[in-house]
Amino acid sequence: MSYIAPVKDMLFAIEHLAQIEQVAQIPGFEDANLDTAQAVLEECAKFNEGVVAPLNWESDKNPSSFQAGVVTTAAGFKDAFRQYAEGGWQGLQHPADFGGQGLPKTIGAACIEMSNSASLSFALCPLLTDGAIEALLTAGSDALKATYLEKLVSGQWTGTMNLTEPQAGSDLALVRTRAEPQPDGTYKVFGTKIFITYGEHDMAENIVHLVLARVQGAPEGVKGISLFVVPKFLVNADGTLGARNDAHCVSIEHKLGIKASPTAVLQFGDHGGAVGYLVGEENRGLEYMFIMMNAARYAVGVQGIAIAERAYQQAVQYARDRVQSRPVDGSVAGSAAIIHHPDVRRMLMTMRAYTEGCRAMATTAAAAYDAAHHHPDAQVRKDNATFYEFMVPLVKGYSTEMSLEVTSLGVQVHGGMGFIEETGAAQHYRDAKILTIYEGTTAIQANDLVGRKTARDGGQSARAIAAQIEKTEGELTASATPAALAVAKRLQAARQAFLDVVGFVAGSAKADPNAVYAGSVPYLMLTGNLVAGWQMARALLVAQELLHKGQDEAFMRAKIATAQFYAEHILVKTGSLRDSIVEGAASVTALALDAF
Amino acid sequence: MSYIAPVKDMLFAIEHLAQIEQVAQIPGFEDANLDTAQAVLEECAKFNEGVVAPLNWESDKNPSSFQAGVVTTAAGFKDAFRQYAEGGWQGLQHPADFGGQGLPKTIGAACIEMSNSASLSFALCPLLTDGAIEALLTAGSDALKATYLEKLVSGQWTGTMNLTEPQAGSDLALVRTRAEPQPDGTYKVFGTKIFITYGEHDMAENIVHLVLARVQGAPEGVKGISLFVVPKFLVNADGTLGARNDAHCVSIEHKLGIKASPTAVLQFGDHGGAVGYLVGEENRGLEYMFIMMNAARYAVGVQGIAIAERAYQQAVQYARDRVQSRPVDGSVAGSAAIIHHPDVRRMLMTMRAYTEGCRAMATTAAAAYDAAHHHPDAQVRKDNATFYEFMVPLVKGYSTEMSLEVTSLGVQVHGGMGFIEETGAAQHYRDAKILTIYEGTTAIQANDLVGRKTARDGGQSARAIAAQIEKTEGELTASATPAALAVAKRLQAARQAFLDVVGFVAGSAKADPNAVYAGSVPYLMLTGNLVAGWQMARALLVAQELLHKGQDEAFMRAKIATAQFYAEHILVKTGSLRDSIVEGAASVTALALDAF
Repeated sequence: MSYIAPVKDMLFAIEHLAQIEQVAQIPGFEDANLDTAQAVLEECAKFNEGVVAPLNWESDKNPSSFQAGVVTTAAGFKDAFRQYAEGGWQGLQHPADFGGQGLPKTIGAACIEMSNSASLSFALCPLLTDGAIEALLTAGSDALKATYLEKLVSGQWTGTMNLTEPQAGSDLALVRTRAEPQPDGTYKVFGTKIFITYGEHDMAENIVHLVLARVQGAPEGVKGISLFVVPKFLVNADGTLGARNDAHCVSIEHKLGIKASPTAVLQFGDHGGAVGYLVGEENRGLEYMFIMMNAARYAVGVQGIAIAERAYQQAVQYARDRVQSRPVDGSVAGSAAIIHHPDVRRMLMTMRAYTEGCRAMATTAAAAYDAAHHHPDAQVRKDNATFYEFMVPLVKGYSTEMSLEVTSLGVQVHGGMGFIEETGAAQHYRDAKILTIYEGTTAIQANDLVGRKTARDGGQSARAIAAQIEKTEGELTASATPAALAVAKRLQAARQAFLDVVGFVAGSAKADPNAVYAGSVPYLMLTGNLVAGWQMARALLVAQELLHKGQDEAFMRAKIATAQFYAEHILVKTGSLRDSIVEGAASVTALALDAF
Repeated sequence: MSYIAPVKDMLFAIEHLAQIEQVAQIPGFEDANLDTAQAVLEECAKFNEGVVAPLNWESDKNPSSFQAGVVTTAAGFKDAFRQYAEGGWQGLQHPADFGGQGLPKTIGAACIEMSNSASLSFALCPLLTDGAIEALLTAGSDALKATYLEKLVSGQWTGTMNLTEPQAGSDLALVRTRAEPQPDGTYKVFGTKIFITYGEHDMAENIVHLVLARVQGAPEGVKGISLFVVPKFLVNADGTLGARNDAHCVSIEHKLGIKASPTAVLQFGDHGGAVGYLVGEENRGLEYMFIMMNAARYAVGVQGIAIAERAYQQAVQYARDRVQSRPVDGSVAGSAAIIHHPDVRRMLMTMRAYTEGCRAMATTAAAAYDAAHHHPDAQVRKDNATFYEFMVPLVKGYSTEMSLEVTSLGVQVHGGMGFIEETGAAQHYRDAKILTIYEGTTAIQANDLVGRKTARDGGQSARAIAAQIEKTEGELTASATPAALAVAKRLQAARQAFLDVVGFVAGSAKADPNAVYAGSVPYLMLTGNLVAGWQMARALLVAQELLHKGQDEAFMRAKIATAQFYAEHILVKTGSLRDSIVEGAASVTALALDAF
């Protein structure tokens, strides 16, 4: 159950798909070249393989626990987080001004994948801290930045996102937590927040809660929500910790998975009011929260890739070791390792192709993020921002949905042993299930893709991506190898299916919203499938070229084989999704409500 | 988290798809008419809803436990099983000669579904006892029958299947447990068996283990395996219990799901040898075991339907209760119950359509079983046997694979609450995962479908089914309603895809086994999908006709809507499966073994 970071595949994506050398031409990223990427990834692999990964199984068995307001995290977590902080990993992508290393997301995303492969539960703490840092960087006052950022970036303190309340999950309009303005400019916060990941723990000196609440008299709905910093301990003017704030953990949840990460119910203001500090302006909380959410959504997509990679590695190991039955082709006399059986190969290839495809998609999206935020040319920034925004729901939605299938196959490869908790495969299956839910369910991602990313511009961004894919098809056809032609055939059909659906979505979103939203998740799945398949096609072209140059033959051949498998076994699914979306919308809502 | 047995849908399938009145014309089944079915199902519903279903969640939280060789089952199980036995449920399908009720499988299958919806863990005990009864009925000597059958049929004793050993799972050729003949005609059995469901428990006076073992000097491989009865307590000549046999539980497993069902490691013969009685002839054990297996495989398929139904009901309930967000069509001002959201409807419809489709398939298969075993006409028996044999891997493989998707959607409908164990949705997700593994993994079912059921007769049975489907298409086209035409279109395409694959499988199984077996599971999924969709199409035709007659309008409209949804959202998937199987075989095994 060990984990070996797939550094080679990550660097392939960083170098050839995300084109790190172009990222390194952006002012501020001059040092972020391939050598840097390699050095950082190797160091990161060492840390996560050696320190974090060994904690994963035991911390599921003996997870974080709660007693009298205090959460004790799983054995080893506190020490691992200390090492994480000391290694500078929390600050990897954050500005040097606040003690970070200022590396591009193109490199940082690979590190996030590694820590999540090592332990999803552990990695959630820095993941949420990243979100808090993003929100403060974007909207926090200089005073808030000065007080909190350096400590968060160093990993001395951690951050949380407090959105959900019992009646307000996907629907933040229903948030009831209230904030009362005080004469000194602070607020007193009152309310209950649930599902707060690392809402209480013992791994850091202070916890910086970012809390959505309504100021008295604010408009109803999402336009009346503000964002507050509510620290666990108040911070003195000299930066030392002051009084305990009135924000208390009253319980943690008993969950299906990610058990080692404490999921807290937080009670604000039961003893007079929790002191809160407004972030940015009143009633713009949702806007700021979306900054955190977007960062977190991308990261949750990477979690999907991470857990898929871990499940894949474990399944391969088992398939090599487990001897059972004769191969159908008679190639081995007597019983053979099950990796010789075609269906086991099909399962492993499916796991591998999904994982590599989504990694390629996420890495490419990361490079767009870097250009969108840092490129000197405004048009380049805008184009990349559009592309990245389109990618976020795909990275989040598709990579997490595929992780359910991959972790399920991971159990299946193990047969009966997979159902036994001691084997560890079942843990990945349990852990993955949260990924399609938190930071916005797949349906919420799909609504975003349909509404803000497709219908709003009449399908223009979507069609721009289709045009890029068509270019790749041309390159495949020109290359004319059997593998390239096989992939081109499937890619073309998938793109055509995509264009049909984009026409339907853009054309009918206003006139017949029920029909379009009935196909929203299938549309997300089709598009994620296509984009990941497209990136695998690009990878195939690069691999063919490098193979021709004699570079790393085994790796390049494997990439080509995996890309062709992706096209012939995953990309092919887009056709039926198209039919369901475009021709089957009415039957989704045809059943009378009382007939269910 | 209550459960209401879907008696109406079951009776619809029993009456109109399985055509119970034809079953009732078979000698011995004269009383098994629709009225009987209804009476039995209503009584069965009452028992399972009232007695078993309430135990399900608590028994997962506080499952069966093991201490010093003794298994204490979950609270309430012992009493519930006593009531189960007293109600005569164990004997429902078994011969009156041994105290059973001799009802057809067409009725019995619905009862098995109900008890598994109520509690998968609980229902496993009678499920395995059924298998033991089948094996003894078929191959047991009169003495064995006299000693064991009545007690098993009455539920006074229970049965187990002892196949798996640490090195022998799917590959029974590797079984090492050995049996030494004794002068008195008995055997002494020595060995270790794992994964023995209800291998030890406190719900019955005796446990009748059916054990695969090798007699000394037997041929190697599966041709040297014999089947033995090894009771927990030896049975005196007068039927009373004698000495404790040398078969002991040494531990039970810590599992992902079905936690309340004890999964035992059994040690035979550590204290001198466990007394075993040969079933049938030496070295024919595998053949007899397949009788148990086939019965159990069908039943496990029904378990998939059962857990899907339970997950569906729970998701519907939540979707009605949970208020969150405004509908996209503006039909409700303010936040609405989430069942108003198109994607929630899509998820619920998917769950419903899969469940009803697989129930229709299983019920139809059950009628074929009854005819195959009891019809006076030899040709009718033969045709039905062929049909039933073809159905077994589909009922087992497809219904369980779909249950993974359905229970996953069940969690998803609940959003964040689904991930909290207290909600109960996660339990179904965990419980279902064993179903694609035990009694032969999906790949094992697929091998059966490819090898014994398709390639062996050159695709003849498969094509006979396609011809029946074509007839249904004709009826749909003749009916000419929009729903019927929509279904006909998808059914025809799916049948064509099936025929392409059958041609490929039958044509290449010998020449290129790797290529064919690379697509074995996709072939099973395609075929299960098609057959369930076909049954939904038949259901639509019946529903249209009854609607026309004014019968139960709400039910008939719901059936038509569900059938059309099935066709447009599930049946459509067959096209991509066809492409993967027929055109994508090479890429499954293209990756070099050491490149994984």
